[in-house]
Amino acid sequence: MCDASGAIGIFDSGVGGLTVFARVAARLPDESIVYLGDTARVPYGTKSADTVIRYARASAAILLEQHVKLIVVACNTASACAVSVLRQELSVPVVGVIEPGARAAVRRSATGCIGVIGTAGTVASGAYPAVIKELAPGARVHCKACPLFVPLAEEGWTQGVVPEAAAEHYLGELVGLGIDTLVLGCTHYPLLTEVIAKTVGLDVTLVDSAEETAVTVQETMAGLGLLVRAQHAPRRQFLVSDAPECFARIGRCFLGQELAEVAWVDF
Amino acid sequence: MCDASGAIGIFDSGVGGLTVFARVAARLPDESIVYLGDTARVPYGTKSADTVIRYARASAAILLEQHVKLIVVACNTASACAVSVLRQELSVPVVGVIEPGARAAVRRSATGCIGVIGTAGTVASGAYPAVIKELAPGARVHCKACPLFVPLAEEGWTQGVVPEAAAEHYLGELVGLGIDTLVLGCTHYPLLTEVIAKTVGLDVTLVDSAEETAVTVQETMAGLGLLVRAQHAPRRQFLVSDAPECFARIGRCFLGQELAEVAWVDF
Repeated sequence: MCDASGAIGIFDSGVGGLTVFARVAARLPDESIVYLGDTARVPYGTKSADTVIRYARASAAILLEQHVKLIVVACNTASACAVSVLRQELSVPVVGVIEPGARAAVRRSATGCIGVIGTAGTVASGAYPAVIKELAPGARVHCKACPLFVPLAEEGWTQGVVPEAAAEHYLGELVGLGIDTLVLGCTHYPLLTEVIAKTVGLDVTLVDSAEETAVTVQETMAGLGLLVRAQHAPRRQFLVSDAPECFARIGRCFLGQELAEVAWVDF
Repeated sequence: MCDASGAIGIFDSGVGGLTVFARVAARLPDESIVYLGDTARVPYGTKSADTVIRYARASAAILLEQHVKLIVVACNTASACAVSVLRQELSVPVVGVIEPGARAAVRRSATGCIGVIGTAGTVASGAYPAVIKELAPGARVHCKACPLFVPLAEEGWTQGVVPEAAAEHYLGELVGLGIDTLVLGCTHYPLLTEVIAKTVGLDVTLVDSAEETAVTVQETMAGLGLLVRAQHAPRRQFLVSDAPECFARIGRCFLGQELAEVAWVDF
């Protein structure tokens, strides 16, 4: 069982989930947070669901060793494939990014014609359409896997001919289908917001699930009595499976500040 | 110790090494071959040297369980980072792809001005320039990491605006430096040969180390008395760490034939 004294655990396949970390940390400044990035096995989006479930279980086990009271699955692919498994198996609450992202999309769409972009794994899972249609049975959902967006974002190659042509290649069809809302269903994609917005046009609302996920984390913890009382020095800890210095460098760009403590963990 | 009755072991981070497998199998049709693709942790090229060495050790251990008599490291990144470590630690001979590729480049270059493209890990290792300069001390070697080429090749996105613009971005500078030979220092890159050749021009010779590596394997085995006597049904076995059916499908495209036996292995 868990109590309010533990930390919030967040795991992701790499650095992308730091966008979720940032929103959770901003919304819950008194909570300790342990972030785990599986940088040695990134990306998850091209791997099979079985492998992603295996890695998600391993990540959750590492976080539980750190006495977390709630686990946030910041990676869309892991959320799509593994959240239901983890909820069955773990004794702490598990928050994924799919439900919050779907809820935000349904709220913001006027026409009910919603696009979702994500990794091959996320799209193949069918998780977004399932949740969106549960919330809004009349919605029409069009999904598109954009495999090159992750390496482009990781390279910091977010402007110019190549990302623009890739965006046109992936998104042209969605635009033609008349979507009014587009879910950025991968934590890397917000880095490509500018080129995505330029391609789909200003009439399409882009939804990044990070802020909505932070709201869900807060509500879940409040509902279960897991919110900590004010404390002076909440822990901010980062664990990674590949080189810590590399993560610290990229993480600094993501968060706009130094990452205090980055440690290597083998799992 | 090893004897001629064992199989040849080949490992790679994924499917790319099948180009090496094909050349070794064509040159040594009577030999049994066990191929291991670490598809659950691919790619290696963006990971740290320490992590690549860890994964290379694990792959070698799996192959040794299969009683291999020689190990071929088909992945350029793993060859660059881990071959010397494996040679120290293992009792079987280890053949990488760097030395064969470097030898072929030196042989084919008329001017001694050689370009090398590879993953970030391969380029950072400095392995190609070191070997090329050992073979031809007067050579000038220019290296360039091309991180987007692996995802493009894996997507089968080998023609059109995006790969052409990416090739121009990566290779424009090398062309300006006057190279007459370009080493394709990653097993994925031969899939992009057409667009690479178009970018660097017909005057530049492209070197793919697969054939040269197969020659080195044959020579090494002959020198050590490890060549098998003619046998009727040499084994062709494929082990992968992610979904076998996905590997079998992509592998069929790589090899132009069905892969008889693909099994999942956890490591």
